[in-house]
Formats: sequence, structure tokens, C-alpha cells
Amino acid sequence: MTSYREAGVDTALKAATLARLRERVRPGRPEVLGGIGGFGGLFRAPTGKDLVLVATTDGVGTKTELARLLDRYEVIGADVVHQSVNDALAVGAEPLFFLDYFATSHLDPAIFDRVVDAVAAACDASGCALLGGETAEMPGVFAEGAFDVVGFLVGAVERERLLDPASAREGDVLVGIPSSGLHTNGYTLARAIVARLARREGHSVEETLRAPRAALAAPTGAPAAGTGSASAGSASAGIASAGESVSLADALLAPHRSYLVEVRALRAAAEVRAIAHLTGGGWEGNLPRALPDGLGVAVRRGAWTVPPLFTFLGDEGGVAEAERYGTWNMGIGLVAVVPPLTADAAIAAVAGAVRLGTVERARPGEPRVRFV
Amino acid sequence: MTSYREAGVDTALKAATLARLRERVRPGRPEVLGGIGGFGGLFRAPTGKDLVLVATTDGVGTKTELARLLDRYEVIGADVVHQSVNDALAVGAEPLFFLDYFATSHLDPAIFDRVVDAVAAACDASGCALLGGETAEMPGVFAEGAFDVVGFLVGAVERERLLDPASAREGDVLVGIPSSGLHTNGYTLARAIVARLARREGHSVEETLRAPRAALAAPTGAPAAGTGSASAGSASAGIASAGESVSLADALLAPHRSYLVEVRALRAAAEVRAIAHLTGGGWEGNLPRALPDGLGVAVRRGAWTVPPLFTFLGDEGGVAEAERYGTWNMGIGLVAVVPPLTADAAIAAVAGAVRLGTVERARPGEPRVRFV
Repeated sequence: MTSYREAGVDTALKAATLARLRERVRPGRPEVLGGIGGFGGLFRAPTGKDLVLVATTDGVGTKTELARLLDRYEVIGADVVHQSVNDALAVGAEPLFFLDYFATSHLDPAIFDRVVDAVAAACDASGCALLGGETAEMPGVFAEGAFDVVGFLVGAVERERLLDPASAREGDVLVGIPSSGLHTNGYTLARAIVARLARREGHSVEETLRAPRAALAAPTGAPAAGTGSASAGSASAGIASAGESVSLADALLAPHRSYLVEVRALRAAAEVRAIAHLTGGGWEGNLPRALPDGLGVAVRRGAWTVPPLFTFLGDEGGVAEAERYGTWNMGIGLVAVVPPLTADAAIAAVAGAVRLGTVERARPGEPRVRFV
Repeated sequence: MTSYREAGVDTALKAATLARLRERVRPGRPEVLGGIGGFGGLFRAPTGKDLVLVATTDGVGTKTELARLLDRYEVIGADVVHQSVNDALAVGAEPLFFLDYFATSHLDPAIFDRVVDAVAAACDASGCALLGGETAEMPGVFAEGAFDVVGFLVGAVERERLLDPASAREGDVLVGIPSSGLHTNGYTLARAIVARLARREGHSVEETLRAPRAALAAPTGAPAAGTGSASAGSASAGIASAGESVSLADALLAPHRSYLVEVRALRAAAEVRAIAHLTGGGWEGNLPRALPDGLGVAVRRGAWTVPPLFTFLGDEGGVAEAERYGTWNMGIGLVAVVPPLTADAAIAAVAGAVRLGTVERARPGEPRVRFV
């Protein structure tokens, strides 16, 4: 006799896991109707003049592999929510509701619970309802024990409050807000560098990750990224105070920072024309998304201190400069485009915000992000 | 020098792939603002009295492995849209917009294009905007060449048109609509059975899948599942006319049928109290989701002919009866709960619809779906 369980999928386990999830998840917002478990999550449509719904989706990439190796699954739950919240913020919206998808070779309820508890907590802190989710067991598709977590978020914004890349103009100022680390991008490259380092040091990857390293400590006097953030969940784990030793494990598993509080403060203090969330593709892959065709940016390299994690990884891996900025956020997670007159107010509104540079005409045939 | 590409992730390829996608994807609905490529997809919020948004997410499971082996990627694109459309229909909503997530070990643009073209076509046919999507390359997390596709759909419905499982009553009639095959569930079990069959027959899995088999042909006189469906994309591939030989490949790679047209017809012709979409967990896992606590159903086994694919797989695999009905849809993909007085009108409204049984009091400690 063959059963689904023998074939590698335990539906009873999945049902029990989802039942526990239903008990633990709070609707989070008054618009939620009913609980999780129907064929779809229900949310009273927002009413208001000229409202626009904003939908985003993203996975967390191979950061899951580090979370697994170091038994820090909670980070992934925060990551998958915060990255979607930030994408919604980048078009001007605030989050309404979120759904998560968790896929793995074989469902481990304890791991699933830890990830989804963190998802629920991050949703709560973001004022976002956790409206539903799905799990999938895919033996053979996923490497044994590997998993992927994907988030879907819907937000809303009044049409006149939409951020519009087309509105950015030559001379506008770029305001950067520090990241908390790699966030959720460039982990395959980072992991390859760590694996090579481990071979060179003659240690296991885990030992290499856990070793405290002075080279990863923030330089004396440099502002620690993430400091002053009031965003729930944007923990500064992995970002050391000046002089401390830090492990690669801590630095690489810092949660993707949420910019919810910071973007609200920016928009309350200044006119914001457009926002870029620096994710996959780094600077060149994301900054132009906040600009109209024909415009680029000049970014002053001295405007911020690249956190030691990026320099350490880049140097260890012999990663070319352009590749670093085209893969990682290099210490800046979100960039707002503001008119020159309100730039000072914008920078003053957010702790750690820096004046990165200005919008300029793009040079034909050259990258639209120019480092000066 | 280490680059992201050498580490297994090709961001330029991904950017080019997404750029091609932007060109090919049509917004599909007038509410869509701007194109794909911003940090979030924009959709004018539906207006109307007491509107409810419905959000669903699901992956397609290990059906992707068969699509890969048999080079039929388009099926997966239709599957991921139709399954979400059906989930939205099950709570009474019609689709508004869809986002897809495609993750794999290494991005193959040709495969990605085929899947996403099929996603776009299925969205178009469902009156649903393809509002965005994401791709992820996760070498090491996914087995080499393996992939996962996940869909996220938002629909809307007036609150008074929501289908409510709490409204189902003892004596209500179950109206079943045929499936087009396994849809997207129970593939890990089906694949295990096929692998064993291949070993026994001394052929490769691919040969075993491609061999025509008389045992898979629809019995003479039996209505072919899916016949008469006007749903776009609910092709009857894999469902043979009476007497034909059919391969496991055809039968297993029939696309997940969309019930959009059928549910509209049902609701126009009859009062519909609740709907169950028979997906993962089969009958016992899904039918109770359309019922209030304390009620179950009595289903007449003779009400429909189980398609030969299910019998063939079940017999070949020595799968116990309860396991078959707890894993696969067994030929019925959607079940509507209707008041007895409108049951005939409901059945007449949809080609192939059958009177499956009735709602009854659940028996404490026993499954809520009772086959009689």
C-alpha cells in the first residue's frame, strides 16, 4: 500500500500545523472578516476617494540557508514582511494585509511555527493583517531541509499621495536611510564567499560564521546603521557599537529593516517625490526605478560609511566595486528623492538619514547611478 | 574575483527576463495604473457598497516536476492562475488581479517565458490583471533545474454576495462539477506510483509516462470530465473520449480546470450557499470548509464515474480508498451547496454537473464526509 505520507507528504501534519496557525494568528485589523482557513482571506475593501491598491510579492532568497544553518528562523519571518512593507512604502502606500507562502522538502512544524510566529509579529507591528497563507511540501524539488518563504502584501494609498518616479527632477536631493545589513539580497554571493573563507581558515562554515571578528565591528565614531529607528522589528542585531567584535552570523542574519516609521516621518516633514528600496540588483538595479527616463543620480561615496560587513565580504571575495554596488545595498536600504528646499527637513526627520547626492541628467550609454 | 554570477545568480539575466516580461504582459483591466516594474503593482480600488476583498495564495506543488520532465511548462502557468481563481470563486468573489512568484535553482529564460506567457494568457481569459511578479534564483535550495510557481490573487465581492459556509443547512443538495484530472494536488503520491510502475515495467519514468494506455481511456458512455466547459484554459487535454488510449503524461498534465464560467452560471440559475474547491486534502480536507460545525455530507459513490486516471493510480499504488479520497479530487473539482428547491436548476445550468448527495448532521468522532 502506498500512502501520501510514505510518498513524502504528510497532509495530517499539514492540517494540524495550519489549525495551530489559525489559533495563533490574530486578524490584526478590524477590516478582517472571519478567520484564516476559508478558501480565501476576507478583508473589507478600504473606502475613500480615489484609492489605489498596491500589491507586492517577494521571497527572501537563500538567506533561508543561513537561518537554517544557524537555527535562527525568526529572522526570515521578519524579513519577508518588512521587505514587502518597504516595497509598498516605495510607491507611497501603507500596508493593509499580508499572506505568506512557506515551501520546503518536508514540513517541520516547529520550524514552520517559528517562521510564521515571526511573520505574525512583524505584521502586527506593521499594522498589517495576516490574512492567510499556504504551506507546500515538495520533496525532490527542494534540497532536503531547505525552504523558501514568499510574501504577498496589499496596501492602499490615495491616488494623490502615490509616489511618482516621473515627478523627480534634475537637482532633486537623494536622502538615504541606513540598512541593517544585506537585508534579503546577495546572499548566494555572500554564502559563496563565506564558504571559501571557511575552507581557507580550515573551519566548518558554521564555525566561520560564528567566530567573532574585529573587522566586522563598526569603526569608532561611525554612526551605527539602524540606530534611532523606531520601526518595530528593525532590530539592530548584527550592527555592533563602535569597537565591538561581531560574528558573520550576527551581521548576516540581521533582519531586513522596516522603514515604515521612517517613511511616515519623511513624508510628514518634507515633500517626497519618489522612493527607491535598494533590493535585488543593488543601486543600479533599483535607484533608476525612482526616476523618469533620461535622469540619473550622482551619489557621493563619502556621504555615508559603508558598514564593515560589506567591505569584509567584498574584500574577502575579491568582488569588484561595481559588482558590490550592483548586488548589495552597501549600507543604504532606502533612498528618497526630495526637492532641494525640503531636503534639510527630510534629513532632520529621520535619525541616521544622509544627503547622498542629487538627481542629474543621465549620460547616454552609461549607468544611471554615478558614484562621485 | 568572485561575482554574483559565478556564485550562481545572474542578475543581468534576471533583469533582461523581467524587462521582456514587462513588454509582453498586458495590464488586462482598466483599473491598472502604470506597468509592471515599480516596487508594487497599482490597481484602482474597486468602489461599491460594502465590498469585500478576497485574497488567496497557493503553489502548484510537484506537478512542476512532471512539467519539467515532459517539457510542458505552459500547463503550470494555467494551473497557478486557475487554482487561485477557483479559491476566490469558492468564497463568492470574482478575480481582480494576480501576481506570480517563480523560484528555481538557475533561471532559464526560455522556461520562465513559457510559464509566464501561460500565466498572462490565463489571467486574460479570467478577466484578471497580471499586476506583478517576482523571480528568484536559489541554487542549493532548489534541486538543480527544479522550480516552484506560486500565485497570489485578489478578488472582490459585495458583502451580501459572499458565500457563507455557516448558511448551509441539513438537507441542502451537493452539486458537483467534474475536474480535469488531479488538478494540482497529490502529485508527489502520483509520481511515486509512476516511478514504481516504471521500475516494474523496466522502462524509464518518461517512457512509462508517455506510453498510451487503454486503461486510462474514458469508459464508453461515461461523460468525459470537462466536457462542455466554456472556461478559457480549462482544456480537456488528458481526458480522452470514450475508447481512446491515453498516456499518463496527458492525463497527469491536464491543466487545473477553471470554474469561473460554471460558477457564474450556477449563481445565475440557483441560490448557492457555499462552495468547496477540492484541492490539497481531497474530500475530507475541503468539503467541511463549506459547512458549519456540526454538519457533514453524505455523498453517493454512484453519482459520478471516477475517471480512469484515479482508479489506475490508486490500483497501481495499492492506495487505500480513504487515502484516495483524502488526497485526490477523484473526478470532482468543485462542489456547490444549494437549497433542495434550486438543485435541479443548478445542475441544469452547468454541463456535466451532478447531484452528489446531501448535507446531514455530522456524526461525532467520524469523518464529516460519508460515502454511501
